Amino acid sequence: MKKLINHPEAVVDEMLDGMAAAHPDLLKRLPGSSVIVRKNAPVQGKVGLVSGGGSGHEPAHGGYVGSGMLDAAVAGEVFTSPAPDQILQAIKAADGGRGVLLIIKNYAGDVMNFDMTAELAEVEGIPVKRVIVNDDVALKNKQSGERRGIAGTVFVHKIAGAWAEAGASLEEVHRIAEKTVRHVRTMGVALTPCTVPAVGKPGFSLGENEMEVGMGIHGEPGIMRRSLMTSDEVAVDLLNHILEDLPVKEGDQVSVLVNSLGATPQMELYILNRKISKCLQDKGIHVFSTHIGEFMTSLEMAGCSLTLLRLDDELRKGLEAPANTAAWVQA
Amino acid sequence: MKKLINHPEAVVDEMLDGMAAAHPDLLKRLPGSSVIVRKNAPVQGKVGLVSGGGSGHEPAHGGYVGSGMLDAAVAGEVFTSPAPDQILQAIKAADGGRGVLLIIKNYAGDVMNFDMTAELAEVEGIPVKRVIVNDDVALKNKQSGERRGIAGTVFVHKIAGAWAEAGASLEEVHRIAEKTVRHVRTMGVALTPCTVPAVGKPGFSLGENEMEVGMGIHGEPGIMRRSLMTSDEVAVDLLNHILEDLPVKEGDQVSVLVNSLGATPQMELYILNRKISKCLQDKGIHVFSTHIGEFMTSLEMAGCSLTLLRLDDELRKGLEAPANTAAWVQA
Repeated sequence: MKKLINHPEAVVDEMLDGMAAAHPDLLKRLPGSSVIVRKNAPVQGKVGLVSGGGSGHEPAHGGYVGSGMLDAAVAGEVFTSPAPDQILQAIKAADGGRGVLLIIKNYAGDVMNFDMTAELAEVEGIPVKRVIVNDDVALKNKQSGERRGIAGTVFVHKIAGAWAEAGASLEEVHRIAEKTVRHVRTMGVALTPCTVPAVGKPGFSLGENEMEVGMGIHGEPGIMRRSLMTSDEVAVDLLNHILEDLPVKEGDQVSVLVNSLGATPQMELYILNRKISKCLQDKGIHVFSTHIGEFMTSLEMAGCSLTLLRLDDELRKGLEAPANTAAWVQA
Repeated sequence: MKKLINHPEAVVDEMLDGMAAAHPDLLKRLPGSSVIVRKNAPVQGKVGLVSGGGSGHEPAHGGYVGSGMLDAAVAGEVFTSPAPDQILQAIKAADGGRGVLLIIKNYAGDVMNFDMTAELAEVEGIPVKRVIVNDDVALKNKQSGERRGIAGTVFVHKIAGAWAEAGASLEEVHRIAEKTVRHVRTMGVALTPCTVPAVGKPGFSLGENEMEVGMGIHGEPGIMRRSLMTSDEVAVDLLNHILEDLPVKEGDQVSVLVNSLGATPQMELYILNRKISKCLQDKGIHVFSTHIGEFMTSLEMAGCSLTLLRLDDELRKGLEAPANTAAWVQA
């Protein structure tokens, strides 16, 4: 295992310290916890937004803590759901008197721990609503309830965060977050595995000329393992899977997010976007904005995911509102 | 070679198209060229800023084209200096009537081609000045004229870009860019090699437990090959090399940039920053801002670099001014 770390068991703890040290103007670490909160949290009179999950997906989710996005992010161990006591600290830190929305990626452990904590918070008098993100169309033949939450989650942070910042009520922010989930789809490909530090060896293996289509962000199996495709073939394949599932018609407006899983260079992301952009243009679908980079990673996995978000006025307003976080700045 | 590309010979051309398609609000590609220019270039009455070099270092340099940073970026083939005719197109596109500053990383081919083109531009009546960035202290025993330019270049883009945007003259922007170079130092470590697409195999090899200290961004040899160090050891080592060379004393203010060479996860960058931040605090050096992510990469190389910039009022003002580019947004 070739990593720039100290102790495999300390990676999350040390990362959180390093993050707090890097961005004191934006965020802080709640002492003794694995919770990153907005510097001025709780913001009185604003709905609080909390997300989180296993670590190893950076900048998700601490990188999205700041004005216009999240109020708090809870970090579990690598690829492991955070514990309820940590989530409860995040909810309390985020509550500015108008309730808290939990943005949860659809994994059994995350859903169970966030749900359990939501009940504890309600007992303590904090109104809590939750939205479960399940954007991964690689599992489209399953019920949407079984789909995983991946990079589309970042659009939910951005849009719900903007409306919360604008003063919307918990019910409104929840409704808009739910709508964002209905409008967003993602699918990815992996070229190499990644290694969880505490495990010390790759979670799976791929042959020299193999790729996995539809792989999850923890290395969950996809829908097909096959020989390496060209970038253009990957672009068409991901786009087709998404458009089979997401109703987008000529004249509609979308936002595109091309996400590196960790080791894939920006050069390759831009080459992929070239074809995606052409295909959408050919279909008469208007691209409102394109976001290229690392948004929801899997440590040092090589590969990428494509996310499409179908916009309406409400979602577009949320997307174009200002934000100031470590990983997403919008003037 | 496991890359998401189409044809190894087409990567730069297709990347530039994908970049133009992604950010039409910020930039465009000059038709038939390998030049990315600011959307509204030339900005009349503003000093133009041009940078560039071999591709494979994305987001450098196209990702820094936009308001408050570069007016144009010229992309050579991967790890190859751009040709004079391309540089000349960039200079002409960037010239808004007050002259153009060239920001050149210190490599023989880049310096030769940019210098040659500067003469051509002057013949055509465009005043041109140049600054050569040579921030790599891994070569500190050599004359500074032989040092390579690496991630510190991004601070030169940001600070010179801010002053140009504020209306400074070519002489002033040049003076401030030169000062930035005098105040900035970088050093990196590599854990794995990278593969130039047209070559098809890694440029060098490193053993399972080996790292190279001071390696350049094209895989140039560093100052030592050794067994893998812990993150804390790397932080101390890089910082010591930099501080031996850059005069920084207690009470001074610096900005820190922790740059991934491509494949190193943000988790590891933040763990490194934890120690860097502590060491600087122990020395009584104040950190004004910390920048973590991919700024000057080497394709999919694993490893990172640390850059320190010693601030004064002029440099700090340049750093905190607004910018709107694909890779650096500041509100």
